[in-house]
Amino acid sequence: MIFALDDRLARDTLIVGDLTLCRVLLMNDARWPWLILVPRREGLVEMIDLDPADQTQLMDEAGRAARFLKSQARADKINIGALGNIVRQLHLHVVARVIGDPAWPGPVWGYGTATRYDDKTARSLIAAAQQNLGL
Amino acid sequence: MIFALDDRLARDTLIVGDLTLCRVLLMNDARWPWLILVPRREGLVEMIDLDPADQTQLMDEAGRAARFLKSQARADKINIGALGNIVRQLHLHVVARVIGDPAWPGPVWGYGTATRYDDKTARSLIAAAQQNLGL
Repeated sequence: MIFALDDRLARDTLIVGDLTLCRVLLMNDARWPWLILVPRREGLVEMIDLDPADQTQLMDEAGRAARFLKSQARADKINIGALGNIVRQLHLHVVARVIGDPAWPGPVWGYGTATRYDDKTARSLIAAAQQNLGL
Repeated sequence: MIFALDDRLARDTLIVGDLTLCRVLLMNDARWPWLILVPRREGLVEMIDLDPADQTQLMDEAGRAARFLKSQARADKINIGALGNIVRQLHLHVVARVIGDPAWPGPVWGYGTATRYDDKTARSLIAAAQQNLGL
């Protein structure tokens, strides 16, 4: 199995690590704690391209990401989305939303311009995610 | 088990029918063929509030909705999302996107104002969905 991460995803994110199915990425946007899960399979575009066992695994891994964000970011709501209108490679967004955040209550996708993390904050958040997810 | 559909969801949608887990709704917005799946369980807010068997069932039903929209609307991409920033009752959006549609490539949520279906178009689309989903 050859897996290559989409260039745009690689550019916009920082690597957290690999779970059983997915590569876990941190969106490099300090406005929202935002993880992206990319199933490490070639040629997937839609959720229905995953076989049922992988769909179940993806939901399990998304749940782990959501629980981490809930606790880490004191999120009021988790937003989960598989859009893929711009990046076709199948990827699932798991985003911590807080009441009153910049885009609240609208969606985060396409909203304004990313605010990059400073190195220290990024390292700390990635370390917390790795510990929480057992990576 | 008492299930009551959120008032806002009821107001913005038309009923397609009930699958094993979810009530299937058609968003009353002719800009996009857009189904909403609402697990018929009380008190759910996040995907992680569903037990694993129900998560698997939800993915199965979302897949059926996506396949219907793919064929019916000749969708270029299916967008799937669980946001819930406005309506807290857990619900999953399954939206048919076509390259060049009004919000393309941005998200549909919160974009502009819904264009209501005329009765004939709504009836025809609901009938097609019911037949395709075995309702």
